[in-house]
Amino acid sequence: MTTNHSQFLSAAAEHMKESAIRRMGGVLSAGRDIISFAPGYPAPDTFPWEELGQIAAELLGSREPGVLQYGPTRGYRPLLETIASIMGQRGIATKVEDLLVTTGSQQGLDLVARVLVDPGDVILVELPTYVGAISAFRNLQASLVGVPQEADGIDLAALDATCERLRHEGRCVKFLYVVPNFQNPTGLLIGLDKRQRLLEWAERRDVLIVEDDPYRDLYFEDSAGKADVRPIKADDRQGRVIYLSSFSKTLAPGFRVAWMSAPPAVAAKLEMAKQAGDLLTGSLDQRLIYEACRRGVLDRQLPVLRAHYASKRDVMERALRRELGTAVSWPKPKGGFFLWLTLADGLDADKMIPRAVEHGVIYVAGEAFYVNGEGRNTLRLSFSAPTPERIDAGVSRLALTLRGESAARATGAATAAPGAS
Amino acid sequence: MTTNHSQFLSAAAEHMKESAIRRMGGVLSAGRDIISFAPGYPAPDTFPWEELGQIAAELLGSREPGVLQYGPTRGYRPLLETIASIMGQRGIATKVEDLLVTTGSQQGLDLVARVLVDPGDVILVELPTYVGAISAFRNLQASLVGVPQEADGIDLAALDATCERLRHEGRCVKFLYVVPNFQNPTGLLIGLDKRQRLLEWAERRDVLIVEDDPYRDLYFEDSAGKADVRPIKADDRQGRVIYLSSFSKTLAPGFRVAWMSAPPAVAAKLEMAKQAGDLLTGSLDQRLIYEACRRGVLDRQLPVLRAHYASKRDVMERALRRELGTAVSWPKPKGGFFLWLTLADGLDADKMIPRAVEHGVIYVAGEAFYVNGEGRNTLRLSFSAPTPERIDAGVSRLALTLRGESAARATGAATAAPGAS
Repeated sequence: MTTNHSQFLSAAAEHMKESAIRRMGGVLSAGRDIISFAPGYPAPDTFPWEELGQIAAELLGSREPGVLQYGPTRGYRPLLETIASIMGQRGIATKVEDLLVTTGSQQGLDLVARVLVDPGDVILVELPTYVGAISAFRNLQASLVGVPQEADGIDLAALDATCERLRHEGRCVKFLYVVPNFQNPTGLLIGLDKRQRLLEWAERRDVLIVEDDPYRDLYFEDSAGKADVRPIKADDRQGRVIYLSSFSKTLAPGFRVAWMSAPPAVAAKLEMAKQAGDLLTGSLDQRLIYEACRRGVLDRQLPVLRAHYASKRDVMERALRRELGTAVSWPKPKGGFFLWLTLADGLDADKMIPRAVEHGVIYVAGEAFYVNGEGRNTLRLSFSAPTPERIDAGVSRLALTLRGESAARATGAATAAPGAS
Repeated sequence: MTTNHSQFLSAAAEHMKESAIRRMGGVLSAGRDIISFAPGYPAPDTFPWEELGQIAAELLGSREPGVLQYGPTRGYRPLLETIASIMGQRGIATKVEDLLVTTGSQQGLDLVARVLVDPGDVILVELPTYVGAISAFRNLQASLVGVPQEADGIDLAALDATCERLRHEGRCVKFLYVVPNFQNPTGLLIGLDKRQRLLEWAERRDVLIVEDDPYRDLYFEDSAGKADVRPIKADDRQGRVIYLSSFSKTLAPGFRVAWMSAPPAVAAKLEMAKQAGDLLTGSLDQRLIYEACRRGVLDRQLPVLRAHYASKRDVMERALRRELGTAVSWPKPKGGFFLWLTLADGLDADKMIPRAVEHGVIYVAGEAFYVNGEGRNTLRLSFSAPTPERIDAGVSRLALTLRGESAARATGAATAAPGAS
């Protein structure tokens, strides 16, 4: 007799779904020559390999117990102090007591939901929004309600109307989740004036804001500057904003070192949730990041990364214009890793995936980023990891895919695999 | 106007408490000369510093992107294969598909509760049991029900009676959580025959078993051997057992690399929960552990560690007999990190903490390990991290503490701080 495991699953587990981005990882590992625009991976050739190797050798050579031992749940104290100073440079006055090192920002999203959300509570999100946040929040059985975006970010009138409608229906609206800088997936930047009004709105409506800010340092100097990425949290006088950021996009993601800042009452609960969740973030990883900051490695990386990713964005935009012309449109990314494509012709990005794989290119279909089932004619392209040559070749493959799909659609077979058409 | 954050907290957050062990960390960081028997830290002088330094240099020198990049949620494939082979050596036939690398076993405990437990569901635990499991399970609003232990582990008759009573009351009993080898906190070992009967019980009563096995390799050769630590999972033919183990006690805890094995239907959900929880465990950490296994570092460590910890247990036992005689009693640890003390004289270990700190020694009061409020006359001593000299000195300080407490109790002032008596 084998065990029927489904009877043992929690309600949360029954609703869990595999992430669309991570599923694409399975396609890749099949081993064919596929150019991937799917995951938002930083470019590994930009990692400061040599300095990190030197730091690791010194840390492990020191035999200082803390390098490999358990440590405080909040994080390695010198790293927390460094983070407080980084926060200061971003315009956010921060005490170490407000901070928590997290195992990637993904853990931060999970922790904030655990600490704030009961099943059925509403979290307001942008349409579209980061798929990892959708997963984290849904796993806590939150009810996600989307708000459309304009060219300068979330639509404030729609936001307020949505919030009021939900409250009128007796729903509990806990927080608004936003990615203000070079949003994943759209690359959009919330305007400065709108940031101010968002904060006022949260105060007026007594809602918290969870501000997720991993791409802040990766602005492209031709179209955005330091002033444009001022966090909402910088003007928060009432403790309305919980702020998350990360070293994953600027040093390396494999360390899983990120952080969050929250009002003390919330930070204390976040710490308890992390304590029971994984005790602490990796000790060696935290020290490697700390030393990379202390020795100026991070500061030296940032201008290099800004130029690197801006140049890849240029390559992708040129290729898209050349290969696809008016068959697609997108808002110009002013920073970050992503380009958000809207398909003309009523094409369905998800149904097109088999044809794209056949042509040797993958992306993430836009629907996964929408909490309301929209976005079938959208897709996300990451220009961050592939080389310029691969970006060029990948866009050519994408163009072949689109032309094939349009032609098949014209003959009424758009959803069939290419081999069958 | 500041924000009232308590109105935003989830029901889970309202019930979260700080761990008793981690709270002791605060006492330590106050910077006085305190000998700590509190946390279950491995001895840092046993870490294979040189080999790890060499491995780190090679990994970072290779510039292989995966060393610092995002990677699969399940874990680094070669490490998963290594773990499958370790499982095989423990008598558990394991497919890579059953496995998941976790960010410490603490994450494994959290994930298993998330995937199996709805608020109010019952988890059966040993009296006493691991405090980190208590925190993880309580954060999911599980109802923890304790079952007494005998010299050879959990009392089967009491277990069955408890389960039947709970079901009669209409409660949903999801799983039994056990630490069969050198349990944290008691150091007890479940007898082989009892392991078999536990498995039969779980099958008969249609309950799952979560088997937490971090200390398995640390048996003390004078009193236990490889045959005594055979996992319950080794005889599991029905997929009743979810098994957790870790590299934290055998290589180093700062890497946060552990693993779990579960039936495929449960493993798939655990992966989704981890995906939303922290995406993946550290890439560099996983590769360091993999290389340490591949190069034989782990295999070379194990006999060294067994001798190291056995000798520290001997030091602590000798000191306890010399300094405290019949004022305390304990079951002889046959492996692991812990010695479980029962105080004579009706002393209260928690209330005694200020006096212990005054004398420069700390421990964890036993009550934290009991889900039913018992254990006030018990405490947990870790002999793993301090040097033999510090163990000796710490036990002397503990003896002073106990004598002071007994004397104060005789004069009716047992609960006051020493300065006041």
